[in-house]
Amino acid sequence: MKQRSAIAASGHKFRTKNISKRAQKIVISPIKEMSIIADNFQEETGADIVSFGQGIPYFDTPKYIKKGIREALKEISTAKYTLEPGITELRKLLAKDLFLSKNIANIHPKKELMVAAGCQEAVACALLSIIDVSDEVLLFSPGFASHIEQVIQFGGIPKFAPLIEKEGWRLDTDELEKRVSKKTKAILFSNPSNPTGAVLSKKEIEGLVRIAKKYDLIIIADETYDFLVYDGKKHFSPASLKEVRDRVILCGSFSKKYALTGYRVGYAFADSGIIDHMLKVHDALTICAPAISQKAAIAALCNQKQAKLWNKEYLKKMTENRDLILKELNQLKDLFEYQKPEGAYYILARYKIPNINSFEFALNLLEEAKVITIPGAAFGPTGEGHLRFSFACEPTEIKEGFRRIKSWFKNFIRNSYIRRN
Amino acid sequence: MKQRSAIAASGHKFRTKNISKRAQKIVISPIKEMSIIADNFQEETGADIVSFGQGIPYFDTPKYIKKGIREALKEISTAKYTLEPGITELRKLLAKDLFLSKNIANIHPKKELMVAAGCQEAVACALLSIIDVSDEVLLFSPGFASHIEQVIQFGGIPKFAPLIEKEGWRLDTDELEKRVSKKTKAILFSNPSNPTGAVLSKKEIEGLVRIAKKYDLIIIADETYDFLVYDGKKHFSPASLKEVRDRVILCGSFSKKYALTGYRVGYAFADSGIIDHMLKVHDALTICAPAISQKAAIAALCNQKQAKLWNKEYLKKMTENRDLILKELNQLKDLFEYQKPEGAYYILARYKIPNINSFEFALNLLEEAKVITIPGAAFGPTGEGHLRFSFACEPTEIKEGFRRIKSWFKNFIRNSYIRRN
Repeated sequence: MKQRSAIAASGHKFRTKNISKRAQKIVISPIKEMSIIADNFQEETGADIVSFGQGIPYFDTPKYIKKGIREALKEISTAKYTLEPGITELRKLLAKDLFLSKNIANIHPKKELMVAAGCQEAVACALLSIIDVSDEVLLFSPGFASHIEQVIQFGGIPKFAPLIEKEGWRLDTDELEKRVSKKTKAILFSNPSNPTGAVLSKKEIEGLVRIAKKYDLIIIADETYDFLVYDGKKHFSPASLKEVRDRVILCGSFSKKYALTGYRVGYAFADSGIIDHMLKVHDALTICAPAISQKAAIAALCNQKQAKLWNKEYLKKMTENRDLILKELNQLKDLFEYQKPEGAYYILARYKIPNINSFEFALNLLEEAKVITIPGAAFGPTGEGHLRFSFACEPTEIKEGFRRIKSWFKNFIRNSYIRRN
Repeated sequence: MKQRSAIAASGHKFRTKNISKRAQKIVISPIKEMSIIADNFQEETGADIVSFGQGIPYFDTPKYIKKGIREALKEISTAKYTLEPGITELRKLLAKDLFLSKNIANIHPKKELMVAAGCQEAVACALLSIIDVSDEVLLFSPGFASHIEQVIQFGGIPKFAPLIEKEGWRLDTDELEKRVSKKTKAILFSNPSNPTGAVLSKKEIEGLVRIAKKYDLIIIADETYDFLVYDGKKHFSPASLKEVRDRVILCGSFSKKYALTGYRVGYAFADSGIIDHMLKVHDALTICAPAISQKAAIAALCNQKQAKLWNKEYLKKMTENRDLILKELNQLKDLFEYQKPEGAYYILARYKIPNINSFEFALNLLEEAKVITIPGAAFGPTGEGHLRFSFACEPTEIKEGFRRIKSWFKNFIRNSYIRRN
């Protein structure tokens, strides 16, 4: 596999005999690494940095949820561990919400749902419950950076099915099927996609499902961005198909949908026989999701009317941000080309500068333009030659960030011209 | 290994081909399982249950910390991911606190400290960074139930060094050394001990350290209960010994010390070369600890004066609770014998009823006496024949719980007498 990380964190080499081979194999996701590098850079130079890095909505948690959090602070139960699988009321609300939003009927809240410390932990629990060392997991390339590290971390082998960039990062089911072996245990992807913003069509999902059934695989669907689909397109979850309900692990999140990224609360829905195993893993990882965050999630789901208003406003803001970043990218056609995102708040733009890998390019942009972007190679081999931009930041930041990139690019062109002549 | 769990969670058997072998091998910690069983039992029967189960202090988070949490709610940064290794201010405060409380000098906050979603996650990060599949980890028996499941979950093999019960659950260094093999990578224990309440002496720590150096092992010390040591005894951390600073991973928690169990916030201190690897694992597990919980921890550490008052009051309350539970146990000498705990808020009592394993006994007590206790076998082979009581509950609950156990025991004696005659 190619380079997957920018630099080692502390620069200090430790006795490898005392470090596990699996830990030596993985990297810190460049999504977070770029933030750490930028933070150190900022501390050293005082530079003010614009971030297209980590995907964090620029606005605060909605007021109606914050009110719920303040109320929760008055309850002594907030100080204490919740039941390990999550607060029962939250699981009941989730069952209802998944029926309303994804048409998944008759969910047993206490047997088929678990609350996790974020969707990341839900996916970790899923993988640890499904794969053993040397098992293979099918991933899309490009796909979510952390999924790659999670698979390797847990001893699995990621097999990358390249997406078709020119068609808007579509899934090529034949390419996926070609990568199935006797060792394959699962297909893992985010939909809408982080980093491409592509949204799988019902037909693409059905293609996936056919492969999962044919080869007896588990589908792990990370649907963190399910609420954020543009231009009237609809999100479709494989968990809503009865025929594969016992082979889908749906992992979801409150982080992005309700501006609660800092609260670390997500969930998984699956067959009770799978959830039983995932709960054992969850116990060994975090005991339970934070009580206050679970109560924030309860507040989020309790008031469906306010949640709808919030989501409508959210979609409006992100549609505006998407249009803004596309406009900016259109003004930089000598530097970038892109596929229009259908969902989430990411764009994976191909850059036209030759002979520079995406890590070098992202570090250059940070140091020279004071702009954080994420190297495309972090998202699998097909991601090389690209940068990921999150457009969840303030519109003014999008403008300022691109002002800097444009100015950097002008300089770059001038210097290249000078070097050539 | 003997039985380590009471029952399967949902009772539904799933296709084993789709479940990893490692997940099949582990159990949900009976500490949480008993709560789940009790919750279902309560829902079905309406019974009101007294819990000596999960170790949760009965009082609420202190006011000065809750004030900090309310303040944090006003900051937009609370809605957002923090830096992956934790808020820098918190790591700086922690470095200072570890110097003051454990005499560990010159900690580099940004390189040697990471914040985790609880001490459980810190230990998970430590293990995943140190052991590969088939590596061995030395544990004390009895030792913390989740440590066993964590080691197995991550593919490791637990090797149990039995403690000397009659001497107050002392460490037998020879027994520990006997279990070292070429596969041994680490020694993992909690000190003060959950479940025995024993506190390792400086001499016992030095014995451990000698073995770690001799066989090139990493010491993973879970010091969750470091603040809770009775009768003027002092807690001693191996991390304060310069000679092994590069082979100790100190895992700590804010949960118990500041009545923040629901908030999921802990930390690890280790050599930067180890922390580098643990951060990669942390990223793959939870991304970052909850922002609001990190800010609660900042509030906890910021005001050392209030923290001292809080801890003094806490120690007083738990000393009273310990004395109360010992008094109650003394009235049940036909049923229990025990070693006096020197720290933490647990007691592992040996019961005198023959031919019943600790799982059956704990389930009986739940169903018949409506009292939650934790089966001793959850804590390793030496734990069988015992029950763990947490005495962190309200003093009135201790009294009521023992009233029920006494009444249950009276019945038990009468029935045995009837059966025998």
